[in-house]
Order: sequence, then structure tokens, then C-alpha cells
Amino acid sequence: MQEKDVIERLRRLATDPAARGLRDDTALLEGLVLTHDSMAEGVHFLSTDPPASVGWKLVAVNLSDLAGKGARPAGALLSMVLSDPDWDAGIIDGIEAACESYGLPLLGGDTIALPVGAPRVYGLTAIGRAGTHTPSRAGGRPGDRLWLAGTLGDSAAGLALLEGKPAVPGPLSEVYQRPIPLLEMGQALAPSAKAMMDVSDGLLIDLQRLCDASGCGAAIDLERLPLSNAFIAERGNGREARLFAATGGDDYALLAALPDSVDPVSLSLPIAPTLTCIGQLVDGSGLVIEDRDGDVPVPERLGYEHHA
Amino acid sequence: MQEKDVIERLRRLATDPAARGLRDDTALLEGLVLTHDSMAEGVHFLSTDPPASVGWKLVAVNLSDLAGKGARPAGALLSMVLSDPDWDAGIIDGIEAACESYGLPLLGGDTIALPVGAPRVYGLTAIGRAGTHTPSRAGGRPGDRLWLAGTLGDSAAGLALLEGKPAVPGPLSEVYQRPIPLLEMGQALAPSAKAMMDVSDGLLIDLQRLCDASGCGAAIDLERLPLSNAFIAERGNGREARLFAATGGDDYALLAALPDSVDPVSLSLPIAPTLTCIGQLVDGSGLVIEDRDGDVPVPERLGYEHHA
Repeated sequence: MQEKDVIERLRRLATDPAARGLRDDTALLEGLVLTHDSMAEGVHFLSTDPPASVGWKLVAVNLSDLAGKGARPAGALLSMVLSDPDWDAGIIDGIEAACESYGLPLLGGDTIALPVGAPRVYGLTAIGRAGTHTPSRAGGRPGDRLWLAGTLGDSAAGLALLEGKPAVPGPLSEVYQRPIPLLEMGQALAPSAKAMMDVSDGLLIDLQRLCDASGCGAAIDLERLPLSNAFIAERGNGREARLFAATGGDDYALLAALPDSVDPVSLSLPIAPTLTCIGQLVDGSGLVIEDRDGDVPVPERLGYEHHA
Repeated sequence: MQEKDVIERLRRLATDPAARGLRDDTALLEGLVLTHDSMAEGVHFLSTDPPASVGWKLVAVNLSDLAGKGARPAGALLSMVLSDPDWDAGIIDGIEAACESYGLPLLGGDTIALPVGAPRVYGLTAIGRAGTHTPSRAGGRPGDRLWLAGTLGDSAAGLALLEGKPAVPGPLSEVYQRPIPLLEMGQALAPSAKAMMDVSDGLLIDLQRLCDASGCGAAIDLERLPLSNAFIAERGNGREARLFAATGGDDYALLAALPDSVDPVSLSLPIAPTLTCIGQLVDGSGLVIEDRDGDVPVPERLGYEHHA
């Protein structure tokens, strides 16, 4: 089965309203927002990544799910694997740094060994306290404007650099290894957002998911996608670079559908990151992409999907 | 690091009261009991186990943690790995059967791929609603009587049979592959229990953990350990068999410390499983084991511990 087939099958077990039909990265149960993401060596991180960055990222990607719902961190359960002592200590260093940075107490979990030689697999369940409104993916409507908090493509560009030369430090590889969950921005946007999610598998695939859940399509302007100076210096600023940024994944940006009547300037937002209007939701079901040269063919690969 | 060294290090991150100092299998946050257990191929299950039994067991072992706290199932987050279609379908069959049997709605989680050839690793976070009292491991006091719900050793004996001949069906291998979480018994005992936990790694090691958390020792009568007829038929009833049962693990029995003044006959208990007084908590810190022939040397290996 492919990822979407498995999820379709699991959806049959997810009839509780708290599951939101598995169309969200998170569940909402009695005021708590719950999410779980696992990370496997060779899939979600490189064997050459410093273990402290792997530990950091494990926490950060789960907090990004909470950020996408405007939740405040309440606690975490860790699924830890035993490896060699230096690696284990590094993983815990990174987890500790991220937990302390974002006020996330470790509440429990388990510690297991894997067979000798097995790729390491870590999991984290993050629990957040919901705010006054917890936007799902499903509330967007044609006419809503699409806002993106953060920049796109840095992490994918950083990963490409690291796959060539593991020791290369720099701002792009830093984004890949130590993503920043946009918790304050998510909390500030959530009360106004009709739909919101974090962008983790790539803007286009995640936007398509938001559209599918909301029952509409989207039109975006490729020129408006926010790119960092470091990204532009590495990859340029043209259509190819922008499509790379829109499909690369691991961004941990936030994507929000706000009613046309809401001007984010009127909201009390944190200074960073940038918030950019990239398009709007439209009638229909698919994605329409434009840039200065006109219509952009929608890429076959919208982002990252797992296949067995 | 060994498992206990890693846990000691993680305890520094677990300062929130909800974490209960990581001395419990579960966390308690705003009326919800939270637990996470992972299961790895070649460690927690055999490659020859039917996938449906692996899926069942993944749910059951987590529900057993909730049972140990007297909680009622509220929901689960699943960490699913993509494998071959038949295996994936079997895993989901087992998860579905267990979720339906115990009223556990699937609320979310994630689905990942692992590198080719990697052992499969599944995780589940189970969330329960706490009852009026959620006993930790730490509330036991010298003089409390130790009660065990369920039987011991069936699963370990079943595993030993399966390791020899994977195709052997029978009551012992059935217990290993399809453990039953004692949810009703846990709910019935929790209001009276000063300390309670499920027995998953072996009675002796788990009792030692309860003693460590409660700051006391324990004396148990090996003769009183509840054994099933199937276990006795396979392994006998002597000291060696009873020590095997007390250290084998995977029992998913419940261990409760009840005040001497509480007679479980006065409680409204489910008809099954059996509830047996196996000893009491005492002053000191270690375990004292007796049988009809007198003092029994405490085995060096008290149960199952992970080592890298």
C-alpha cells in the first residue's frame, strides 16, 4: 500500500470527532491538541547528521504541528531507542535544548532497543493546550486569502548540500538540521484562520491537502513565495528554483487561509518570521500556479510522500 | 548507555508534575492518562508472528498501561510503517480488532517508510480518561498487601514455544500474541489502590520498580503466584517454573498495593481474571521471596531490560 491507501484504511478506525477524520496532522481532545511524528535514520535524517540536531528536529517537527493549530506546548512523550552512548547522549542533548527553548516538559514515553544494525527510529508525541479556536485544514472557502509564515526551500536546499558534503555548515543546512517551530505566529493567526496547517512535506502537497479537506481549489502566485537570501544565493530566483522551494518539504512554515476581510497587519503578530500573501482559495479542486510568464504547469511531484 | 542510564538522563527533562518523575508508565495531564509504547520486529515481536497479532498487541500493551492506572480508553495516535501490502493490511486488521474490542478510537498519528530491509517499528500513544484516583507506583507503604490480577508466565512460555516452532498454536502462544488488557479490573481496583501498575517486563522487576518508587521493600510467597493450567502443563509447578513465571515478562497482569484494611471481596470486581494476594510491602528496599522450602535466592535477572 502507498501512504494514502494506508491512511484511507486507517480512516475507518477514526470515527471519533476528535480525530477530525485523520484529515489533520493533529487530534483535538478535551482542549488538548495531540500529534505524533516519527523520524527514521536514512529517511528523515542522515546518518551523518549530528545527533543533537536529530534530537532537536524530533521535538521541533512535532511542535510545528502544534504551531499549525495555534496551540501552546503542554508536554511530550518520547519513544527513545538505545544506541551507542555518545549518540544517545547527543540525541538527548538536542531534545533537551528544544524542550527548554519552547517550554515543553517531557512527560513520559518509552525506551527500546532495536536489532543490531537497524536504522534508528525515534518518535515523539507532542501535546498542546488549544487556544480559543483550533483551525483544522477543512474550514477554508473560496475567496479566502492564503498566507504563508516563514520561507520556503531553505531546508531542501540545505539537505541537497549536506548529501554532497556532510560537513558543510551554513544557513541552509542549519535550517534543515534545526528547524524553528513557529509557535507564536501560529497562536497569533489561529483565532482568525479558517484553515491552517504547518508546511512539512512541501507547500504544494500540503496546500492540496488543505484544498481537499476544505472542498475547494487554490490559485497561487509563484513570484510571491517567500525565499531567503541564502536560498536565492544558492538556487536563484527563477521558476525552477521556486518550484523546487514549493515542493521541497521540511519547511515547517505555516499556511493559513484567512478571510479576505482580515488584514494581518491588524493582528498582533510576532516580528519574525515574514508573513506573505501567496494566493487565494478558489472554486474547484486543483491547484493553479502562475508566475510573471503566465501559467505554470503543476508539477507531477507536489512534495514528499512515503512509499513502501 | 543502558536503559536505566538513559532514563536517568531523561528524568532531568521531566520536571513537570504531570511526568511523575518518569517513575510511572504513564503521565497524568489535565484528567488524561497518557502512555506510549513502541514495538520493534526482532525485539518485541517475531518476524513469524501473524501481522494481525502484532497490531492487536501494539494496542493491547498500551491499553494495559491505562489499565494499570484505572483509566478508561479515550483515543490513540498510531505511528505506522509502510511495508508490503499484505503485512500492512494484517497490522491494520489487528489494530482495528483491538480498537473495536476496547472502544479505543484512533485519533491520529503518522505513517512513515523505513529503509529497505529495516526491522519494522510501530508506536502507539494511548490516551485514557482518569478515574477518581489515578494510582502511581509511588504510593505504597509497608504493610500494604500486594494483589495480582491475572496469571503469570503464560506469555513467556508461549514465546519459548513459538521460538522453537513458529506454527504451533495453543493457549500459551495465544497469550503471547494476543494479550488482554485488564481495563475493567484496573478501573475497579484503582480507587482503593495506594500503588498500581501493569506487569509487562516481569513481576519481579516491575515489583522492584514499585518498591523503588514507594521507598520500601516487598516480601512475596512464590507458592501463591497465580499460574494457569496451560502453564503448569507445559512448565510444571515447582520453584524453577515459578521463577520463570515471575521474571518472564509480557504478562500484562496488574499489580496493586492495597491497604491491609481493604478486602477485595468487598469491591465490585469483574468476574475475570483471578485476583490473588501474593505478599506485602515491607520496610527496607529489596525483594524477599519465599516458598514452601524456605527462602528463595532472588534471581540476578529480575525481568526484561533493554540494552543497546
